[in-house]
Amino acid sequence: MQKHLIIIGGVAAGTKAASKARREDPDLKISLYTEEKYISYSACGLPYYISGTIQNEKKLLVRTSEDFKEKEHIDIYLQHRVTRIIPEKKAVMVKNLDMSEEFEKEYTCLLVATGSSPIMPPLAGINLKNIFKLKSIEDGIKIKQSVKSAKRAVIVGAGYIGLEMAEAFHELGIKTTIIERTSHILSTFDPDMTDQIRTYLEEEKDLKIITDDSVTGFIGDNKGNLIEIQTQNGQNIKADLAVIAVGVKPNTQIAREAGIKLGKSGAILVNERMQTNYPNIYAAGDCVETINRITNEQTWVPLGSTANKQGRVAAINITGGYAEFKGILGSMVVKIFDYTASKTGLNEKEAKNFGFNYEIAIVSHRDRSGYMPEAKGIILKVMADRKTGNFLGIQAIGKGDADKRVNVIATAITANMTVEKFIQTDLTYAPPYSSAIDPLLIATQILESKFKKGIGSISPQNLQKYLEKEKLCCVVDIRNSEEYESWHIEQAKNVLPKDLERIVAGENHKNILVCCDKGIDGYLKSLKLKKNGCKNVNFIDGGVNYLKNLPEYRK
Amino acid sequence: MQKHLIIIGGVAAGTKAASKARREDPDLKISLYTEEKYISYSACGLPYYISGTIQNEKKLLVRTSEDFKEKEHIDIYLQHRVTRIIPEKKAVMVKNLDMSEEFEKEYTCLLVATGSSPIMPPLAGINLKNIFKLKSIEDGIKIKQSVKSAKRAVIVGAGYIGLEMAEAFHELGIKTTIIERTSHILSTFDPDMTDQIRTYLEEEKDLKIITDDSVTGFIGDNKGNLIEIQTQNGQNIKADLAVIAVGVKPNTQIAREAGIKLGKSGAILVNERMQTNYPNIYAAGDCVETINRITNEQTWVPLGSTANKQGRVAAINITGGYAEFKGILGSMVVKIFDYTASKTGLNEKEAKNFGFNYEIAIVSHRDRSGYMPEAKGIILKVMADRKTGNFLGIQAIGKGDADKRVNVIATAITANMTVEKFIQTDLTYAPPYSSAIDPLLIATQILESKFKKGIGSISPQNLQKYLEKEKLCCVVDIRNSEEYESWHIEQAKNVLPKDLERIVAGENHKNILVCCDKGIDGYLKSLKLKKNGCKNVNFIDGGVNYLKNLPEYRK
Repeated sequence: MQKHLIIIGGVAAGTKAASKARREDPDLKISLYTEEKYISYSACGLPYYISGTIQNEKKLLVRTSEDFKEKEHIDIYLQHRVTRIIPEKKAVMVKNLDMSEEFEKEYTCLLVATGSSPIMPPLAGINLKNIFKLKSIEDGIKIKQSVKSAKRAVIVGAGYIGLEMAEAFHELGIKTTIIERTSHILSTFDPDMTDQIRTYLEEEKDLKIITDDSVTGFIGDNKGNLIEIQTQNGQNIKADLAVIAVGVKPNTQIAREAGIKLGKSGAILVNERMQTNYPNIYAAGDCVETINRITNEQTWVPLGSTANKQGRVAAINITGGYAEFKGILGSMVVKIFDYTASKTGLNEKEAKNFGFNYEIAIVSHRDRSGYMPEAKGIILKVMADRKTGNFLGIQAIGKGDADKRVNVIATAITANMTVEKFIQTDLTYAPPYSSAIDPLLIATQILESKFKKGIGSISPQNLQKYLEKEKLCCVVDIRNSEEYESWHIEQAKNVLPKDLERIVAGENHKNILVCCDKGIDGYLKSLKLKKNGCKNVNFIDGGVNYLKNLPEYRK
Repeated sequence: MQKHLIIIGGVAAGTKAASKARREDPDLKISLYTEEKYISYSACGLPYYISGTIQNEKKLLVRTSEDFKEKEHIDIYLQHRVTRIIPEKKAVMVKNLDMSEEFEKEYTCLLVATGSSPIMPPLAGINLKNIFKLKSIEDGIKIKQSVKSAKRAVIVGAGYIGLEMAEAFHELGIKTTIIERTSHILSTFDPDMTDQIRTYLEEEKDLKIITDDSVTGFIGDNKGNLIEIQTQNGQNIKADLAVIAVGVKPNTQIAREAGIKLGKSGAILVNERMQTNYPNIYAAGDCVETINRITNEQTWVPLGSTANKQGRVAAINITGGYAEFKGILGSMVVKIFDYTASKTGLNEKEAKNFGFNYEIAIVSHRDRSGYMPEAKGIILKVMADRKTGNFLGIQAIGKGDADKRVNVIATAITANMTVEKFIQTDLTYAPPYSSAIDPLLIATQILESKFKKGIGSISPQNLQKYLEKEKLCCVVDIRNSEEYESWHIEQAKNVLPKDLERIVAGENHKNILVCCDKGIDGYLKSLKLKKNGCKNVNFIDGGVNYLKNLPEYRK
């Protein structure tokens, strides 16, 4: 009997698995069911379609169902919903949404790639016209229709989709407000990294960003059109369009009903081969839980790049091969107007929660040689584990090339590379691409010095607490007097680098705190003071340039 | 007695070492001698100063000698040439070039950072006016003066400096010819990678590039001004300006005369701590030989980024610490107009010469999601060792973001990461930054398949030989008929992907060769045909898009 692979879901994991399975097994019968009208599309491109950067939604379609049929003999059933999985019969119940007919199909192997759905909070007025989610091409088309007449929009949720949509709306001339439940935008980053982007969005892009507040209801007019959004803190925001981007949830209902085990996160539990508790039922993509390679804990981070890889691994195993998906690092990048925000591994909050004894280096630097006109700033926050010397994560933001540095650290983490070993890496250099010593190497050299030489630093978050505790601390700001006059920490006195040692030697303070511009000179001077016999010397991570942009320090 | 570190040389390694030594040892007396007028400058920025991208040469000065004196108590002696090292007396002889006086100075420790000099071939007329080298700021200033009246220039040597200068001259409206002794530009790359850039330079930038030819002499007018360049192959090229960029040689004369051992390359031999055969004489930067981390052979690759790191390591060891410089990978990047050319590790010729049993993957791909308007092409050529599964190198060129992928592989090589392990790396993805599966992951998946599944390919260089040998080979071109009509291999027949298996099955040929557009579909179809029972199936590395741009295939 011909083997039959049934795939439920037709976006990243499902279509990737279908093609890979076909290549691995020319004789396999492959059927793919999706309740959507489109398959194999790039959902990540939707904000660019809505903004008009991409003119036609067809460009987002990677492949059509005809293409699958013709080139690979894969049967794609659009607008067909799988309503039930019957493991004991090795069968699924399928409903043709066009005809409302329901039928049963038997499989030898099943792949659940049902993806995820945007969370739509059950609030008053959530079903009003012009309240949208953004997940499928059809969602994108609806928003694109709606923006033509919109003047004011509200985006609920300041994650990467919310911010990409804010950019799209701004490009379309729509006045936009973002409402975020937590205290900062892009919550997978540490707040000290993203606050600079928030300031930029508010001051240069005229976006209104409301944090620590949540929507309580949507008010409509008598035709059922959205006109106002109300929040917990009593804000009433006029809007003729809202996008809900508060997150997604895994689509697991039919899996759960069939006895397929779910993990802690509520997503489907699979082993490294993407196999569920039923040996012939696999699952891949947004609907499954995976492993965080740093913490070894189960985690759920739905992303298109992960879905693609998991689909490939599932297909290899389904067709009798052997492949493993080893987990994720939480790597991501998002473009927010001129800014890039990128990360991999843990952020500081996660490192703390997981109990790591971590060390941090924060460096503000130009992304290429400072004398090149196109050089732009980036801020790197790199973390490593004191115990193993291995990297825990990096966050990189700025108008310059931040993403390049993140992929290097993603590779280093995957290779279990220590900071000490990484410093020996021969990175490329030419003035249009980096500084002679790449900012990433500077940051890792600082980490290494902190490990080996006990050079201490105070992180921006802990600075106030530190200054309150160490009232007699000698705070020296080694920038030039102009920089000092324009902004400095209240307690700091301005000391020229050349006078530093003399003045510090004359002080009877136990503690010295060095402030510099970018977190590099302060580190270097600390090294030197330590060599000079100063026992308790610290510098401020990231320097004053970083500090002064944090909300608690901005006037 | 106060310890005294004398440093000879004031560019990257010398000044880096001075600062680092000061931080490590506050009490050390540090004197730095340089015969130049400037110290601590970025020679790599000179082409951008000449083109006018950087307005003022002062911008290239990282630090001044006053700065070193004031902030770090380091004594910098400009225009002071060290004429002799006397190891038995722990002293150097120094000549003040201003006053012509010579004096002796004793050291406790010496750092030789004498750098390298451009090779000026001893040709007839080499001393004519308007023939320049490019190494120091003073060289740059001279060229900048000269370009004001220049209409035609010749650059001798098509390495990275030659090509950067060609771009600078083009921006200034100077008609430029490049003469290169070897068969291709950028000789640290494989010719198949750089030929595309050559075509671009000739066709779109109107540069004249002469390869396989060398200069025999320079002809001047009666005022001693250059007017013509003559070549081996009988070319007479009119020019009122020439830049010699045929390479550099290490400055080792005083070291050699003092009995400091040199390596095979002629550069100074040092251990991992940057120590010469005299325990208290260290050397760093362009004047020293280092280790290639892949071949473990001594090599000499003078680069500013390496010099900086070596200076740091030398200073740590000189001041009683412990640090090692583990060697280089030959990482580099150069901007050539809109193109980026970047590499790390070995090229194919080197892999062959060193006897590696290597495998190659060549992929042409967009650097980000194809539907993003700013997506641009890159070509990746990745090599790995069949024996260990480790990477041997990557070359990346294109108008898109090529450099980002090279630094990732530099990290993987440094970590001794296998291709198999690398495939699990969680790289960042968003449409403005990469495709959902990064081109680098596609290339490494192809490598992995070649390793594990015996999928074969024919490299562009070997194609003609292969076709001559395998006369009965069935060559199938699976692109659409339009693409096929516009260019195809003579022997190829056009076969639609859907008909491929049927047609191949009907053929009685022993060998099948699949041509596709970008080296990816051909690989995928080969996988499939192999699964279908075709024993001897190959695809063309890099596909037709790559092949048709090679000179031997261009009409």
